[in-house]
Amino acid sequence: MKYDFETIVDRRNTNSIKWDVEASELPMWIADMDFKVCPEIIQAMKEKLALQAFGYEEADREYFDAVIQWYEQVHNAHLEADWMIFATGVIPALSSIVRRVSHVADNVLVQAPVYNIFYNSIENAGRHVISSDLHYDGHSYSIDWNDLEEKLSLPLTTMMILCNPHNPVGKVWTKDELEKISALCEKHHVILVSDEIHGDLIRHGVDYTPAFALKHHKQTISLVSPSKTFNVAALHAATVIIPDKNLRQSVSRGLNSDELAEPNLLAIPGTIAAYTQGKTWRDELIEQLNINFDYASSFIADELPILKVVPGTATYLMWIDISKLNTDSATLAEFLRKETGLIVSAGEVYRGNGPEFIRINLACPLSLVKDGMNRLAKGVNKFVNK
Amino acid sequence: MKYDFETIVDRRNTNSIKWDVEASELPMWIADMDFKVCPEIIQAMKEKLALQAFGYEEADREYFDAVIQWYEQVHNAHLEADWMIFATGVIPALSSIVRRVSHVADNVLVQAPVYNIFYNSIENAGRHVISSDLHYDGHSYSIDWNDLEEKLSLPLTTMMILCNPHNPVGKVWTKDELEKISALCEKHHVILVSDEIHGDLIRHGVDYTPAFALKHHKQTISLVSPSKTFNVAALHAATVIIPDKNLRQSVSRGLNSDELAEPNLLAIPGTIAAYTQGKTWRDELIEQLNINFDYASSFIADELPILKVVPGTATYLMWIDISKLNTDSATLAEFLRKETGLIVSAGEVYRGNGPEFIRINLACPLSLVKDGMNRLAKGVNKFVNK
Ligand SMILES: Cc1ncc(COP(=O)(O)O)c(C=O)c1O
Ligand SMILES: Cc1ncc(COP(=O)(O)O)c(C=O)c1O
Repeated sequence: MKYDFETIVDRRNTNSIKWDVEASELPMWIADMDFKVCPEIIQAMKEKLALQAFGYEEADREYFDAVIQWYEQVHNAHLEADWMIFATGVIPALSSIVRRVSHVADNVLVQAPVYNIFYNSIENAGRHVISSDLHYDGHSYSIDWNDLEEKLSLPLTTMMILCNPHNPVGKVWTKDELEKISALCEKHHVILVSDEIHGDLIRHGVDYTPAFALKHHKQTISLVSPSKTFNVAALHAATVIIPDKNLRQSVSRGLNSDELAEPNLLAIPGTIAAYTQGKTWRDELIEQLNINFDYASSFIADELPILKVVPGTATYLMWIDISKLNTDSATLAEFLRKETGLIVSAGEVYRGNGPEFIRINLACPLSLVKDGMNRLAKGVNKFVNK
Repeated sequence: MKYDFETIVDRRNTNSIKWDVEASELPMWIADMDFKVCPEIIQAMKEKLALQAFGYEEADREYFDAVIQWYEQVHNAHLEADWMIFATGVIPALSSIVRRVSHVADNVLVQAPVYNIFYNSIENAGRHVISSDLHYDGHSYSIDWNDLEEKLSLPLTTMMILCNPHNPVGKVWTKDELEKISALCEKHHVILVSDEIHGDLIRHGVDYTPAFALKHHKQTISLVSPSKTFNVAALHAATVIIPDKNLRQSVSRGLNSDELAEPNLLAIPGTIAAYTQGKTWRDELIEQLNINFDYASSFIADELPILKVVPGTATYLMWIDISKLNTDSATLAEFLRKETGLIVSAGEVYRGNGPEFIRINLACPLSLVKDGMNRLAKGVNKFVNK
């Protein structure tokens, strides 16, 4: 490979939340990566620093063109420059949209188990979470369409938040499924907000489809960002894509008055570099993630047959069924941390059937994946023999 | 001087809002500076880039210690580490505090003419602006204490936003005035929010007093940031200082759910460098600003006696009385831009008696100040002879 996915960056004592842990601990929970950031992005950041003047900024045509180019090139999807708004992050945008587009005490629909922060965005704003739980058949997840339509048709359900592709289950929704969801939303006057932060991390199989590329895209909002793909969570840059002009203007006003619309000094050059020079790095990242997932899947199949890996095709997060351990994920996660130093995410925070799962972040050099798997085996065996 | 306050940084086509103007135009409006940023800050930013991993972060003890040290050293004011919360900017924090601490339809008191964005923070949140206008005696501004108390005592007045020191009139409130304001606020159960973003830019005379250093500091919130002092508006870093624990916890929850509490990758190292290594740079900046203000004041006294400079001692913004021109500031500002390319802020956006003033940003190399003054003279003379 051209790029380095082997070196372990020492992130302790760097203000990193993930690495604010004991010396003996190995954090494989919070979703940022331990690879070195794509050097082309760092180069663009350095060039920005050379300007030596960091006053108020706004995103310009070059920024939006970079987003367009990426989606054409990588996802074969077309979008217009004037559909886009800059925002300081996917969750900041989502929280602002919940406040702007729905009303207090409305229902916002999600599909549990799902990224836990969605619940904060909804509940912090005084809206209610309504979940059309994904159906789990002991192997993989699917949508219960009757349940979904029933809940979308409730008069107080005014928004649906889709995780596209889905964190934590790693599922890439097909184009047909997405067309069906968006048609149902349109039918029942529900705004569809599609969080596509993991969209560039399709490890194999069919690519994901952005919501803006759907037939019924009028009532959709797509949220995209280089932050997961390129490990730049602290770049604080995301793009809100809204084909419909009225909806877009309303959301734009919301982002402005919520103070989430101004780029920091690296946000624009960092995003442009990622989207115009980052494709090879991203392709190699996917290769590395496949190596990591293959290793971890085989390891678990061989050494820990009591666990079952849910076979996702997207994200760098592995979703592991622990139901045969007859415990709950929080108890297991606590035990693993205490006994082996391995820190994983307990599935219960994602609600739905999450308590029977743990989530492990595999976006790190293979040597750390191996370390993590050994700790997992040690911990689970100890747990079983307890 | 040790540092360079002469070189003109070419900021055109750099996403700068201020410099998104015609080639022949000279922007002296929006409040960012045209000096090169303090090299120690740039060095710290470069070091952060060398880390090459930019995941989720939080402010740590070193950050808060840097703030403490700066206020001890520069303002002889003491604060406690646990009084502080990180925020992504002064206005983001202010908007969030308005939403969190006051209620819809409450009155929020300001002292017009004042920084225009205060009005947005209040009105965007569905609160009402109530102004105790500053009294102008044809020379300088003062507080009408009876009017202030009357308005603070209204049951719907629940918050006061103080500009300390005051933009645009350049006034540094004395410690006595501030004690009196904070006592009145306490008496009438009004939360006092003190925007101290210009606090490090006292050009001469008595230093400013932070609200947290007042006797009645229990119901105060001080907002500070290196952004104006060090020309790092796009660093997106500010600190909210709240001595009272209950109030602090409430504001902290608000900043979190408003998604304004997470530092971007440069915010922490940039702020630490500014506050621990920036004092000499800031002292020299003040020298340069005094040179610029002396030049512009003499120029206007000599060449444009029809204008009158309000003798402020803080900020890099000059507040100029244009009442003898018998026009309004918007008409004059438009005329100046069209005829000479000089862009100034029309005073009307600050409300109060603002329509009889223009505001000129003098934070630029002296050569640009001279250019600006020549354009001002040309424009005003043309306006008078029209
Ligand atoms: C589905 C999803 N959305 C959003 C985020 C975070 O987005 P941001 O950091 O841009 O707010 C994450 C991070 O894990 C995520 O998994
Ligand atoms: C009084 C005052 N407060 C706040 C700001 C802006 O603060 P920030 O950029 O941190 O939101 C300005 C900028 O001109 C200002 O003059």
